[in-house]
Amino acid sequence: MATRQIVPAAGGAGLRLARGEHLRIIDIEGGQTGDLMAFSQDGRERLSNGRTFDYGGKIYLSTGDVLWSDRSRPMLTIVEDGVGRHDFLYSSCSLEMYRIQYGVTGYHANCHDNLLSALRELGVEPDSLPTAFNFFMNVNVLPDGRLEFAPPRCRAGDSMVVRAEMDLAIALSSCPASTCNGGAPPRPIAYEIVTI
Amino acid sequence: MATRQIVPAAGGAGLRLARGEHLRIIDIEGGQTGDLMAFSQDGRERLSNGRTFDYGGKIYLSTGDVLWSDRSRPMLTIVEDGVGRHDFLYSSCSLEMYRIQYGVTGYHANCHDNLLSALRELGVEPDSLPTAFNFFMNVNVLPDGRLEFAPPRCRAGDSMVVRAEMDLAIALSSCPASTCNGGAPPRPIAYEIVTI
Repeated sequence: MATRQIVPAAGGAGLRLARGEHLRIIDIEGGQTGDLMAFSQDGRERLSNGRTFDYGGKIYLSTGDVLWSDRSRPMLTIVEDGVGRHDFLYSSCSLEMYRIQYGVTGYHANCHDNLLSALRELGVEPDSLPTAFNFFMNVNVLPDGRLEFAPPRCRAGDSMVVRAEMDLAIALSSCPASTCNGGAPPRPIAYEIVTI
Repeated sequence: MATRQIVPAAGGAGLRLARGEHLRIIDIEGGQTGDLMAFSQDGRERLSNGRTFDYGGKIYLSTGDVLWSDRSRPMLTIVEDGVGRHDFLYSSCSLEMYRIQYGVTGYHANCHDNLLSALRELGVEPDSLPTAFNFFMNVNVLPDGRLEFAPPRCRAGDSMVVRAEMDLAIALSSCPASTCNGGAPPRPIAYEIVTI
Protein backbone atom coordinates (compact mmCIF):
# COMPACT_ATOMS: atom_id res chain seq x y z
CA MET A 1 0.00 0.00 0.00
CA ALA A 2 1.38 3.40 -0.96
CA THR A 3 2.38 5.72 1.84
CA ARG A 4 0.57 9.03 1.71
CA GLN A 5 2.77 12.08 2.15
CA ILE A 6 1.52 15.59 2.82
CA VAL A 7 2.55 18.87 1.25
CA PRO A 8 1.53 21.35 3.96
CA ALA A 9 -0.84 24.19 3.09
CA ALA A 10 1.22 26.90 1.31
CA GLY A 11 4.32 24.71 1.73
CA GLY A 12 6.48 22.49 -0.46
CA ALA A 13 7.97 19.00 -0.62
CA GLY A 14 10.63 17.25 -2.67
CA LEU A 15 10.91 13.65 -3.78
CA ARG A 16 12.96 11.49 -6.10
CA LEU A 17 11.12 9.46 -8.69
CA ALA A 18 12.87 6.67 -10.60
CA ARG A 19 12.10 6.01 -14.24
CA GLY A 20 8.91 3.94 -14.46
CA GLU A 21 7.60 4.96 -11.03
CA HIS A 22 4.19 6.60 -10.71
CA LEU A 23 3.30 9.62 -8.60
CA ARG A 24 -0.27 10.31 -7.56
CA ILE A 25 -1.12 13.89 -6.56
CA ILE A 26 -4.30 14.28 -4.53
CA ASP A 27 -6.43 17.30 -3.73
CA ILE A 28 -7.46 16.38 -0.19
CA GLU A 29 -10.13 18.97 0.56
CA GLY A 30 -11.11 20.14 -2.95
CA GLY A 31 -10.35 23.30 -4.92
CA GLN A 32 -6.63 23.42 -4.11
CA THR A 33 -4.05 23.98 -6.84
CA GLY A 34 -0.33 23.37 -6.78
CA ASP A 35 2.92 23.55 -8.73
CA LEU A 36 5.08 20.71 -9.95
CA MET A 37 8.70 21.20 -10.99
CA ALA A 38 10.89 18.44 -12.43
CA PHE A 39 14.62 18.28 -13.00
CA SER A 40 16.83 15.40 -14.04
CA GLN A 41 18.58 13.97 -10.98
CA ASP A 42 21.81 15.80 -11.87
CA GLY A 43 19.93 19.10 -12.23
CA ARG A 44 21.05 19.67 -15.84
CA GLU A 45 17.71 19.06 -17.53
CA ARG A 46 14.48 20.77 -16.62
CA LEU A 47 10.77 20.92 -17.37
CA SER A 48 9.90 23.04 -20.42
CA ASN A 49 6.45 24.40 -21.21
CA GLY A 50 7.64 25.54 -24.65
CA ARG A 51 8.89 22.06 -25.65
CA THR A 52 5.72 20.49 -24.23
CA PHE A 53 3.47 22.85 -26.21
CA ASP A 54 5.51 22.17 -29.35
CA TYR A 55 5.62 18.37 -29.23
CA GLY A 56 2.06 18.04 -27.93
CA GLY A 57 0.64 20.72 -30.23
CA LYS A 58 -1.61 22.04 -27.45
CA ILE A 59 -1.61 23.98 -24.19
CA TYR A 60 -4.20 22.03 -22.17
CA LEU A 61 -2.76 18.71 -21.01
CA SER A 62 -4.46 15.59 -19.67
CA THR A 63 -4.31 11.78 -19.81
CA GLY A 64 -1.78 10.53 -22.34
CA ASP A 65 0.08 13.82 -22.65
CA VAL A 66 3.80 14.13 -22.03
CA LEU A 67 5.70 16.82 -20.13
CA TRP A 68 8.99 17.39 -21.97
CA SER A 69 12.39 18.64 -20.83
CA ASP A 70 14.33 21.56 -22.30
CA ARG A 71 16.58 18.93 -23.93
CA SER A 72 13.63 17.38 -25.77
CA ARG A 73 13.29 14.24 -23.69
CA PRO A 74 10.04 13.05 -22.11
CA MET A 75 10.12 13.65 -18.35
CA LEU A 76 6.59 12.68 -17.23
CA THR A 77 3.49 11.19 -18.83
CA ILE A 78 0.03 11.89 -17.42
CA VAL A 79 -1.49 8.41 -17.10
CA GLU A 80 -4.59 9.27 -15.05
CA ASP A 81 -6.39 12.55 -14.65
CA GLY A 82 -9.49 12.90 -12.51
CA VAL A 83 -9.60 16.68 -12.94
CA GLY A 84 -8.93 17.44 -16.61
CA ARG A 85 -7.67 20.98 -16.39
CA HIS A 86 -4.20 22.20 -15.51
CA ASP A 87 -2.10 25.20 -16.47
CA PHE A 88 1.37 25.39 -17.95
CA LEU A 89 1.37 29.09 -18.88
CA TYR A 90 1.94 30.90 -15.60
CA SER A 91 5.21 31.05 -13.71
CA SER A 92 5.03 30.00 -10.08
CA CYS A 93 3.84 32.70 -7.75
CA SER A 94 6.82 34.47 -6.18
CA LEU A 95 7.50 37.04 -3.50
CA GLU A 96 7.88 39.67 -6.23
CA MET A 97 4.49 38.70 -7.68
CA TYR A 98 2.76 39.19 -4.32
CA ARG A 99 4.43 42.59 -4.01
CA ILE A 100 3.63 43.74 -7.57
CA GLN A 101 0.11 42.36 -7.91
CA TYR A 102 -1.18 42.34 -4.33
CA GLY A 103 0.85 45.08 -2.64
CA VAL A 104 2.23 42.69 -0.04
CA THR A 105 5.05 44.02 2.13
CA GLY A 106 7.36 41.69 4.01
CA TYR A 107 7.52 37.98 3.25
CA HIS A 108 4.66 35.95 1.76
CA ALA A 109 4.74 32.18 1.25
CA ASN A 110 5.10 31.44 -2.47
CA CYS A 111 5.44 28.49 -4.82
CA HIS A 112 8.76 29.69 -6.28
CA ASP A 113 10.53 29.55 -2.92
CA ASN A 114 8.77 26.31 -1.96
CA LEU A 115 9.96 24.62 -5.16
CA LEU A 116 13.49 26.01 -4.89
CA SER A 117 13.84 24.90 -1.25
CA ALA A 118 12.51 21.42 -2.03
CA LEU A 119 14.95 21.05 -4.94
CA ARG A 120 17.86 22.23 -2.78
CA GLU A 121 17.00 19.59 -0.20
CA LEU A 122 17.37 17.06 -3.02
CA GLY A 123 20.77 18.49 -3.95
CA VAL A 124 19.55 20.28 -7.10
CA GLU A 125 20.58 23.96 -7.18
CA PRO A 126 19.19 25.59 -10.33
CA ASP A 127 20.14 29.19 -11.00
CA SER A 128 16.60 29.81 -12.23
CA LEU A 129 13.28 27.96 -12.31
CA PRO A 130 11.39 27.52 -15.59
CA THR A 131 7.61 27.81 -15.74
CA ALA A 132 6.05 25.18 -13.45
CA PHE A 133 3.27 22.74 -14.30
CA ASN A 134 0.33 24.17 -12.33
CA PHE A 135 -1.73 21.10 -11.57
CA PHE A 136 -5.49 21.53 -11.00
CA MET A 137 -5.17 25.23 -11.94
CA ASN A 138 -8.02 26.31 -14.18
CA VAL A 139 -6.88 28.98 -16.63
CA ASN A 140 -8.76 29.77 -19.80
CA VAL A 141 -7.29 31.48 -22.85
CA LEU A 142 -9.96 33.74 -24.33
CA PRO A 143 -10.13 34.22 -28.13
CA ASP A 144 -8.29 37.55 -27.93
CA GLY A 145 -5.48 35.97 -25.87
CA ARG A 146 -6.52 37.31 -22.49
CA LEU A 147 -6.12 34.89 -19.59
CA GLU A 148 -8.90 34.17 -17.16
CA PHE A 149 -8.65 32.39 -13.80
CA ALA A 150 -11.60 30.11 -13.18
CA PRO A 151 -12.27 28.22 -9.93
CA PRO A 152 -10.46 24.86 -9.82
CA ARG A 153 -12.54 21.91 -11.02
CA CYS A 154 -11.06 19.49 -8.49
CA ARG A 155 -13.18 18.17 -5.64
CA ALA A 156 -12.07 16.48 -2.41
CA GLY A 157 -10.21 13.27 -3.23
CA ASP A 158 -9.63 14.03 -6.92
CA SER A 159 -6.20 13.11 -8.17
CA MET A 160 -3.90 12.72 -11.13
CA VAL A 161 -1.09 10.23 -11.77
CA VAL A 162 2.14 10.89 -13.67
CA ARG A 163 4.74 8.32 -14.72
CA ALA A 164 8.43 9.21 -14.66
CA GLU A 165 10.09 8.72 -18.06
CA MET A 166 13.55 9.33 -16.58
CA ASP A 167 15.03 9.51 -13.08
CA LEU A 168 13.75 12.78 -11.63
CA ALA A 169 14.03 15.25 -8.79
CA ILE A 170 10.47 16.50 -8.25
CA ALA A 171 9.30 19.48 -6.22
CA LEU A 172 5.66 20.10 -5.29
CA SER A 173 4.05 23.19 -3.79
CA SER A 174 0.60 23.88 -2.37
CA CYS A 175 -0.20 27.23 -3.97
CA PRO A 176 -0.74 30.01 -1.40
CA ALA A 177 -2.55 32.31 -3.89
CA SER A 178 -6.28 32.40 -3.21
CA THR A 179 -6.76 33.72 -6.78
CA CYS A 180 -5.85 30.26 -8.08
CA ASN A 181 -7.87 28.44 -5.44
CA GLY A 182 -11.30 29.88 -6.11
CA GLY A 183 -10.84 32.47 -3.35
CA ALA A 184 -10.12 29.92 -0.61
CA PRO A 185 -7.11 29.96 1.72
CA PRO A 186 -4.35 27.43 0.95
CA ARG A 187 -4.85 23.84 2.06
CA PRO A 188 -2.60 20.77 1.98
CA ILE A 189 -2.01 18.48 -0.99
CA ALA A 190 -1.19 14.77 -0.69
CA TYR A 191 1.01 12.56 -2.83
CA GLU A 192 1.83 8.88 -3.06
CA ILE A 193 4.33 6.87 -5.07
CA VAL A 194 2.01 4.20 -6.40
CA THR A 195 2.03 0.99 -8.42
CA ILE A 196 -0.60 1.00 -11.15
CA MET B 1 20.82 57.65 -39.00
CA ALA B 2 20.64 54.17 -37.52
CA THR B 3 22.99 51.55 -38.92
CA ARG B 4 21.15 48.57 -40.29
CA GLN B 5 22.57 45.19 -39.26
CA ILE B 6 21.66 41.87 -40.81
CA VAL B 7 20.81 38.58 -39.16
CA PRO B 8 21.65 36.10 -41.95
CA ALA B 9 18.97 33.69 -43.16
CA ALA B 10 18.79 30.83 -40.62
CA GLY B 11 21.57 32.52 -38.62
CA GLY B 12 21.86 34.54 -35.42
CA ALA B 13 23.29 37.78 -34.06
CA GLY B 14 23.96 39.25 -30.64
CA LEU B 15 23.90 42.84 -29.43
CA ARG B 16 24.02 44.80 -26.22
CA LEU B 17 21.21 47.23 -25.54
CA ALA B 18 21.50 49.84 -22.81
CA ARG B 19 18.52 50.82 -20.70
CA GLY B 20 16.41 53.33 -22.64
CA GLU B 21 17.74 52.32 -26.06
CA HIS B 22 15.36 51.17 -28.78
CA LEU B 23 15.79 48.18 -31.08
CA ARG B 24 13.90 47.96 -34.36
CA ILE B 25 13.50 44.49 -35.88
CA ILE B 26 12.64 44.44 -39.58
CA ASP B 27 11.26 41.70 -41.81
CA ILE B 28 13.15 42.54 -45.00
CA GLU B 29 11.41 40.33 -47.54
CA GLY B 30 8.11 39.53 -45.81
CA GLY B 31 6.83 36.41 -44.05
CA GLN B 32 9.99 35.71 -42.03
CA THR B 33 9.80 34.95 -38.32
CA GLY B 34 12.54 35.02 -35.71
CA ASP B 35 13.43 34.49 -32.08
CA LEU B 36 14.49 37.06 -29.53
CA MET B 37 16.24 36.11 -26.29
CA ALA B 38 17.15 38.60 -23.58
CA PHE B 39 19.40 38.27 -20.54
CA SER B 40 20.62 40.86 -18.10
CA GLN B 41 24.19 41.85 -18.96
CA ASP B 42 25.56 39.63 -16.17
CA GLY B 43 23.54 36.65 -17.42
CA ARG B 44 21.72 36.14 -14.11
CA GLU B 45 18.28 37.31 -15.20
CA ARG B 46 16.41 36.03 -18.22
CA LEU B 47 13.28 36.47 -20.28
CA SER B 48 10.22 34.67 -18.85
CA ASN B 49 7.06 33.87 -20.78
CA GLY B 50 5.33 32.77 -17.56
CA ARG B 51 5.99 36.09 -15.77
CA THR B 52 4.99 38.02 -18.90
CA PHE B 53 1.69 36.13 -19.20
CA ASP B 54 1.02 36.68 -15.51
CA TYR B 55 1.73 40.41 -15.29
CA GLY B 56 0.19 41.17 -18.68
CA GLY B 57 -2.79 38.86 -18.19
CA LYS B 58 -2.61 37.73 -21.83
CA ILE B 59 -0.60 35.60 -24.25
CA TYR B 60 -0.73 37.79 -27.41
CA LEU B 61 1.55 40.79 -27.02
CA SER B 62 1.74 44.03 -28.97
CA THR B 63 2.29 47.78 -28.55
CA GLY B 64 2.48 48.82 -24.89
CA ASP B 65 3.09 45.31 -23.57
CA VAL B 66 6.09 44.44 -21.43
CA LEU B 67 8.37 41.40 -21.63
CA TRP B 68 9.30 40.48 -18.05
CA SER B 69 12.30 38.70 -16.55
CA ASP B 70 12.24 35.62 -14.32
CA ARG B 71 13.03 38.01 -11.42
CA SER B 72 9.92 40.05 -12.09
CA ARG B 73 11.57 43.07 -13.62
CA PRO B 74 10.57 44.63 -16.95
CA MET B 75 13.17 43.80 -19.62
CA LEU B 76 11.62 45.19 -22.81
CA THR B 77 8.54 47.20 -23.75
CA ILE B 78 7.01 46.92 -27.22
CA VAL B 79 6.66 50.55 -28.31
CA GLU B 80 5.80 50.04 -31.99
CA ASP B 81 4.35 47.02 -33.72
CA GLY B 82 3.61 46.97 -37.44
CA VAL B 83 2.70 43.29 -37.42
CA GLY B 84 0.49 42.67 -34.40
CA ARG B 85 1.01 38.98 -33.87
CA HIS B 86 3.90 37.23 -32.14
CA ASP B 87 4.28 34.02 -30.17
CA PHE B 88 5.64 33.41 -26.69
CA LEU B 89 4.46 29.81 -26.26
CA TYR B 90 6.92 27.76 -28.30
CA SER B 91 10.50 27.04 -27.37
CA SER B 92 13.05 27.88 -30.02
CA CYS B 93 13.46 25.24 -32.68
CA SER B 94 16.39 22.99 -31.79
CA LEU B 95 18.37 20.20 -33.39
CA GLU B 96 16.37 17.70 -31.33
CA MET B 97 13.12 19.22 -32.61
CA TYR B 98 14.17 18.79 -36.25
CA ARG B 99 15.08 15.19 -35.47
CA ILE B 100 11.85 14.37 -33.58
CA GLN B 101 9.36 16.26 -35.71
CA TYR B 102 10.95 16.25 -39.16
CA GLY B 103 13.16 13.15 -39.10
CA VAL B 104 16.29 15.17 -39.86
CA THR B 105 19.59 13.33 -39.52
CA GLY B 106 22.86 15.19 -39.11
CA TYR B 107 22.97 18.87 -38.23
CA HIS B 108 20.21 21.37 -39.06
CA ALA B 109 20.46 25.11 -38.43
CA ASN B 110 18.22 26.00 -35.49
CA CYS B 111 17.22 29.02 -33.39
CA HIS B 112 18.36 27.43 -30.11
CA ASP B 113 21.97 27.12 -31.25
CA ASN B 114 21.87 30.52 -32.98
CA LEU B 115 20.71 32.21 -29.77
CA LEU B 116 23.17 30.32 -27.57
CA SER B 117 26.12 31.16 -29.85
CA ALA B 118 25.13 34.82 -30.03
CA LEU B 119 24.87 35.02 -26.23
CA ARG B 120 28.26 33.32 -25.80
CA GLU B 121 29.83 35.89 -28.10
CA LEU B 122 28.47 38.50 -25.67
CA GLY B 123 30.00 36.65 -22.71
CA VAL B 124 26.70 35.24 -21.43
CA GLU B 125 26.85 31.46 -20.85
CA PRO B 126 23.42 30.24 -19.68
CA ASP B 127 23.10 26.59 -18.74
CA SER B 128 19.68 26.55 -20.39
CA LEU B 129 17.56 28.85 -22.55
CA PRO B 130 14.02 29.75 -21.51
CA THR B 131 11.21 30.01 -24.06
CA ALA B 132 12.10 32.70 -26.60
CA PHE B 133 9.91 35.55 -27.82
CA ASN B 134 9.02 34.45 -31.35
CA PHE B 135 8.54 37.73 -33.17
CA PHE B 136 6.24 37.81 -36.23
CA MET B 137 5.28 34.17 -35.56
CA ASN B 138 1.56 33.64 -36.01
CA VAL B 139 0.27 30.98 -33.62
CA ASN B 140 -3.39 30.65 -32.72
CA VAL B 141 -4.72 28.93 -29.62
CA LEU B 142 -7.95 27.16 -30.56
CA PRO B 143 -10.80 26.94 -28.00
CA ASP B 144 -9.82 23.36 -27.06
CA GLY B 145 -6.20 24.42 -26.47
CA ARG B 146 -4.75 23.03 -29.68
CA LEU B 147 -2.11 25.20 -31.32
CA GLU B 148 -2.26 26.17 -34.96
CA PHE B 149 0.52 27.70 -37.05
CA ALA B 150 -0.79 30.33 -39.44
CA PRO B 151 1.28 32.11 -42.10
CA PRO B 152 3.09 35.16 -40.73
CA ARG B 153 1.23 38.44 -41.15
CA CYS B 154 4.39 40.46 -41.79
CA ARG B 155 5.09 41.92 -45.22
CA ALA B 156 8.35 43.24 -46.64
CA GLY B 157 9.54 46.19 -44.57
CA ASP B 158 7.27 45.58 -41.58
CA SER B 159 8.92 46.07 -38.22
CA MET B 160 8.52 46.29 -34.49
CA VAL B 161 10.40 48.38 -31.92
CA VAL B 162 11.23 47.40 -28.36
CA ARG B 163 12.69 49.63 -25.64
CA ALA B 164 15.19 48.21 -23.16
CA GLU B 165 14.04 48.66 -19.56
CA MET B 166 17.41 47.46 -18.21
CA ASP B 167 20.88 46.87 -19.68
CA LEU B 168 20.53 43.75 -21.81
CA ALA B 169 22.36 41.11 -23.79
CA ILE B 170 20.07 40.34 -26.73
CA ALA B 171 20.24 37.45 -29.18
CA LEU B 172 18.25 37.30 -32.41
CA SER B 173 17.74 34.40 -34.79
CA SER B 174 16.20 34.11 -38.25
CA CYS B 175 14.06 31.02 -37.87
CA PRO B 176 15.07 28.19 -40.24
CA ALA B 177 11.73 26.34 -39.86
CA SER B 178 9.58 26.73 -42.96
CA THR B 179 6.56 25.71 -40.83
CA CYS B 180 6.79 29.08 -39.05
CA ASN B 181 7.48 31.01 -42.25
CA GLY B 182 4.39 30.10 -44.24
CA GLY B 183 6.28 27.33 -46.03
CA ALA B 184 9.05 29.58 -47.35
CA PRO B 185 12.80 28.98 -46.91
CA PRO B 186 14.55 31.13 -44.29
CA ARG B 187 15.49 34.68 -45.22
CA PRO B 188 17.45 37.38 -43.40
CA ILE B 189 16.11 39.74 -40.74
CA ALA B 190 17.43 43.27 -40.15
CA TYR B 191 17.78 45.27 -36.96
CA GLU B 192 18.74 48.79 -36.00
CA ILE B 193 19.36 50.53 -32.71
CA VAL B 194 17.19 53.59 -33.23
CA THR B 195 16.25 56.87 -31.58
CA ILE B 196 12.50 57.43 -31.51
